[in-house]
Amino acid sequence: MQALRLADLAQTFELQLIGDAGLNIVGVCALLPGKPGHLSFCADARLRAGLAQTRAAAVVLAPRDAKTFSGNALVASDPAVAFARIAGLFDERAKFTAGRHPAASIAEDAQIGAGCWIGAGVVIEAAAVIGANSFIGPNCVIGRDTQIGAGSRLEASVYLASRCRLGARAQVQPGAVIGSRGFGLARAKEGWIEVPQLGAVVVGDDVEIGANTTIDRGALDDTVIENGVKLDNQIQIAHNCRIGAHTAIAACVGIAGSTQIGQRCLIGGAVGIGGHLKIGDDIVILGRAMVTKSLSVPGAYGSGLPVMPAREWRKLIGRVRRLPRTEQRLQAIEQALKIKLSDGDSEVEHDDF
Amino acid sequence: MQALRLADLAQTFELQLIGDAGLNIVGVCALLPGKPGHLSFCADARLRAGLAQTRAAAVVLAPRDAKTFSGNALVASDPAVAFARIAGLFDERAKFTAGRHPAASIAEDAQIGAGCWIGAGVVIEAAAVIGANSFIGPNCVIGRDTQIGAGSRLEASVYLASRCRLGARAQVQPGAVIGSRGFGLARAKEGWIEVPQLGAVVVGDDVEIGANTTIDRGALDDTVIENGVKLDNQIQIAHNCRIGAHTAIAACVGIAGSTQIGQRCLIGGAVGIGGHLKIGDDIVILGRAMVTKSLSVPGAYGSGLPVMPAREWRKLIGRVRRLPRTEQRLQAIEQALKIKLSDGDSEVEHDDF
Amino acid sequence: MQALRLADLAQTFELQLIGDAGLNIVGVCALLPGKPGHLSFCADARLRAGLAQTRAAAVVLAPRDAKTFSGNALVASDPAVAFARIAGLFDERAKFTAGRHPAASIAEDAQIGAGCWIGAGVVIEAAAVIGANSFIGPNCVIGRDTQIGAGSRLEASVYLASRCRLGARAQVQPGAVIGSRGFGLARAKEGWIEVPQLGAVVVGDDVEIGANTTIDRGALDDTVIENGVKLDNQIQIAHNCRIGAHTAIAACVGIAGSTQIGQRCLIGGAVGIGGHLKIGDDIVILGRAMVTKSLSVPGAYGSGLPVMPAREWRKLIGRVRRLPRTEQRLQAIEQALKIKLSDGDSEVEHDDF
Repeated sequence: MQALRLADLAQTFELQLIGDAGLNIVGVCALLPGKPGHLSFCADARLRAGLAQTRAAAVVLAPRDAKTFSGNALVASDPAVAFARIAGLFDERAKFTAGRHPAASIAEDAQIGAGCWIGAGVVIEAAAVIGANSFIGPNCVIGRDTQIGAGSRLEASVYLASRCRLGARAQVQPGAVIGSRGFGLARAKEGWIEVPQLGAVVVGDDVEIGANTTIDRGALDDTVIENGVKLDNQIQIAHNCRIGAHTAIAACVGIAGSTQIGQRCLIGGAVGIGGHLKIGDDIVILGRAMVTKSLSVPGAYGSGLPVMPAREWRKLIGRVRRLPRTEQRLQAIEQALKIKLSDGDSEVEHDDF
Repeated sequence: MQALRLADLAQTFELQLIGDAGLNIVGVCALLPGKPGHLSFCADARLRAGLAQTRAAAVVLAPRDAKTFSGNALVASDPAVAFARIAGLFDERAKFTAGRHPAASIAEDAQIGAGCWIGAGVVIEAAAVIGANSFIGPNCVIGRDTQIGAGSRLEASVYLASRCRLGARAQVQPGAVIGSRGFGLARAKEGWIEVPQLGAVVVGDDVEIGANTTIDRGALDDTVIENGVKLDNQIQIAHNCRIGAHTAIAACVGIAGSTQIGQRCLIGGAVGIGGHLKIGDDIVILGRAMVTKSLSVPGAYGSGLPVMPAREWRKLIGRVRRLPRTEQRLQAIEQALKIKLSDGDSEVEHDDF
Repeated sequence: MQALRLADLAQTFELQLIGDAGLNIVGVCALLPGKPGHLSFCADARLRAGLAQTRAAAVVLAPRDAKTFSGNALVASDPAVAFARIAGLFDERAKFTAGRHPAASIAEDAQIGAGCWIGAGVVIEAAAVIGANSFIGPNCVIGRDTQIGAGSRLEASVYLASRCRLGARAQVQPGAVIGSRGFGLARAKEGWIEVPQLGAVVVGDDVEIGANTTIDRGALDDTVIENGVKLDNQIQIAHNCRIGAHTAIAACVGIAGSTQIGQRCLIGGAVGIGGHLKIGDDIVILGRAMVTKSLSVPGAYGSGLPVMPAREWRKLIGRVRRLPRTEQRLQAIEQALKIKLSDGDSEVEHDDF
C-alpha cells in the first residue's frame, strides 16, 4: 500500500484540511494510542479526551473539535462516515487479480463476468451467472441457475443455493448459507412429511451477510432481503421472511417463518422474533428481546431480566412466582379496609403471545 | 418438469377429484394470488377466504371447503399432508444423475452404493460407506469408518465425522456439523485438560438436520438422534444427548450435555435446555423458553418476558427488582391490621434451577 | 490401538495401583455398564454407587473410594483429570501421517512445518506459516500472511482469515470462522457505509474453538483470545473483544463488540453479553443470562425466568405487567392507614441497561 497525501484525501472526500497538506498517510489507526504516519478519527464525545494524547499523524474530526485541536486534521460533518470511506482505501481485500484458480470446478454454461476472481475449491453449477468484478473466495458453492450481481464478494466457504438471486455489491462472510431448505413439515400419522421448499431467496443490492448466517428459501413464494440490509453473524432467517431496506440486524438473531420486518429497523443481538409477525419501519429492538407480537409504532422496544448475583436472582424469581399470592394478600387487605382501587384479581389472559 | 394431469394426481394419492380431470398441472403455488396452471392448497381456516380469489388452476382442500368451492379441486382429509406429497413431484432436487465428479477425493476403500452422486470437492475418507441412491453435494466431508443410509441427501459443505452413523433418507442442509468434539474439559492446576471425546453420533432413519446445526460426538457413549427427528437450522446438541423419535426442534435451540428429550416433542425456536435433564414424551416447549429442570407431564411450557416499549420495560424491571420491598410493605400492613393471609416473607430458595 | 498395561499407566501418570498390575487395558468406557478390558473412572459422588456394578476392568478413583473398592484401580487425587490424560492415549485423532493430499491448493511461498498433514481441498494462501506437526483437515482455508502454531489441529472446513495468528496446540472444530469482517457500519444519508475492518484476530496457545463458532477481526486494533481459552460451538465473538486466559465459554454465547472478559471465567450456554462491557476475573455467568452491565466482583451471576406450564406462565406475565397497578394499590392502602414504610412510587430509571 503506497502512502496517500493528506491534501489528496481532503480533495477526494471534500473535507476541510487543517495543518500539513503534504503529510503522507500510510494507514489508519485507533485514536489511542495512535500510530505515527497513520490517520485516526474522533466521532464521539467519549473519545474527545484522546485528541490531546493521540500519536496519530492526523485525525478526522467534527467542526466543533477542530477549533481546539492543534494537530493535522480533516474536518467532516460526520467524521465516522468520512473515516469509513477513507479507510476503505487501505482495505487490501478490495484488490484482487481477475482469473480462475485451476482447482475451481465451473460448469461449462456458467457465465462469469469480466474481472472476476474464482478461487480454489469453488464449485459453480450449471447456468449460474456471476456479475463483473466479483470475488468468489475459496470453497464457495454457487448453485444452478443462480445469479450474483456485479462487484460482489463471497469471502470463502459460502453456500448459495440454486435459483437464488444476490444483488450487486453483496458482501458475504464465510460459512453463510443462503437458500437452505425451509423447515416446512406436515404431520401425518406415520410421522413428519417434508413440505417441499420450492421458493428461492432474493437478495437486493448492497447487502451484507455475516459469517455462518443462514437464510432459508421460501416454501412456495420467496424469502426476500431488500436493498442495503446488513446482517451480522449467526443470524437465522426462516422461510418466506421479508427484511426491509436498510435494516441492520446484529448477531445471533432468529426470525421465524413468514415474518416481515420494515425498513431502517435496528435489531439488537440475540433478539428472537416469532413467525407470521409484522414489524413496522424505523423500529429499534434492543438486544435479547423476545418478540411475540407485531409492532407498528416506531421507537425502541425491549424485554428480558438483566443479570444479577445468582443468589439474589434465585430469590427474586421465587418472588415473581408468588405474585399470585402477593395479589391475593393485597386483595384481602383491600376487602378488610373496604378500599377498592383495584379492578380485582381477574386472571387476565393475554392474546399477544 | 412435464405437466401432470389432475386425474393422475387424484389416483396416485387417492384423493377425490372435483372438476376438470384432464387439467394439466405444471407446478405448485401459494393460494394468493395463485398461478394459472398451478396447484395450490387450503389447509387453514385463515386462508379460506382466499379460495374465492385464487388464480390457481386447482386447489387441494378439506371436505368442508369442497362443498362451496366452485373450481377444480382435490379433496383430502389432511390437505397439508396431501399437498406436501404432491409438491414433492415438482421438487427438482430429487432428480440427479449417478456418478462422481472428477474433483471429488474418495478413499480407495470407501464403498459408494449404486445410484449415488458424489459432487465436486467432496472428501470421503477410508472405509466410509454410502448407501445406494444418495446425493453427496459439493464440498462435503465424510469421515473414516462412517456410514450413511440409502437415499440420503447431504446438500453441500456438510461435515460428518469419523465413526458416525446416519440412517436412511437423511436430509442434511449446508454447513451442518455432525460429530464435532464434545466440550469435555477437566480443570487441572495448570488450566483446562481436554477430555477425549471417544463416542460417536448415531442418527436414525428419516432425520432432517438443518443448516449450520452442530451435533457433538459423545464422550464415552454416543450422542443419539432417533428416527424421524427434524432439526431446523443453527441448533446445538451437546455430547451424549438423546433426541426421541419424531421430535421436531426449531431453529437456534441449544441443548446442553447428556440431556434426553422424549418422543414427539415440539421445541420452539431459541429454546435453551440445560444439561443432564430429562424431557418426557409429547412435551411442547414454546419459543425462547429457558429450561432448567426436567419435565415429565405432557403439555405446553413457556417462559420469558415478551417485548414492550423500552421505557416501559425499564421501569417494569425496576419494579420487579423491588419486589422484596413490595412484599415487605405488604407484610407491614398485614401486621398493622393483624391480617395473616400470607405465609410470611420467608426467602424461598428453589432447587430447580 | 494396542493394549496398555495397568502398571504402565500407573507409572506414566504417577498413580497408585490397586489390583492386577499386568492387566491389559484396550480402551476407556463409561462406568455403567462398563466394558470388559476397558478402564473407567469415578469422579463424582453421584456415580459412586456404580462402582459396585461396573463391568469395567479397572477404574480411576479418588483415595476415599479406593478403600472400599474391591476391583482393579488407579488412585488419583483428581480422577477426572487423570482419566482425561489416560483417555488421550486412546484418541486415534492424535495419530496421523505427515504429507499433503494432492487435492490441496498450497501457495508456493507458504511455509509448512515438518510433520504436518494437509488434507484434501485445503486452500493455503500466500505467505501463510503452519507450525510443525499440525493437522489441517479437509476443506480448511488459511488466509494470506496468517500463522498457526505447532501441534495445532484444524479438524475440517475451518476458515482462518488473512493476517491472523493462532497459537500452538490450537484445536479448531469444523465450520469455525476466525477473522470474518467485524460488523462495523456508519450511517450515512444514503444508507449504511461499511467501516473497513483492518484489525486481525490473535489467538494464544492451547485454545479450543468449537464448531461453527465465529470470531470477527478487529476494526482497527485486534480481537484477542488469550492462552488456554476454551470455546464451545456456535459462539459469536464480535470485533475487538478480549477473552482472558483460561476462560471457558459454553455453546451459543454471543458477545458484542469491544467487550473484555477476564481470566478463569465460566460463561454458561446461550448467555448474551452486551458491547463495551468489562467482566472481571473469576466470574461465573449462569446459562442464558442477559448481561447488560460490567461485572467486577467474582462470583456467580444469573438472570431469566425459568420454564413453567404455558398457561401459568401467561397468567404470571400478566401479573408482572400489572406491577405498576399492584404498587399503586399498595400505596393507596398505606395512605389510608398512614403507614409509610415505602419510599413511594417513584418511577426508578436504571442506567445499567
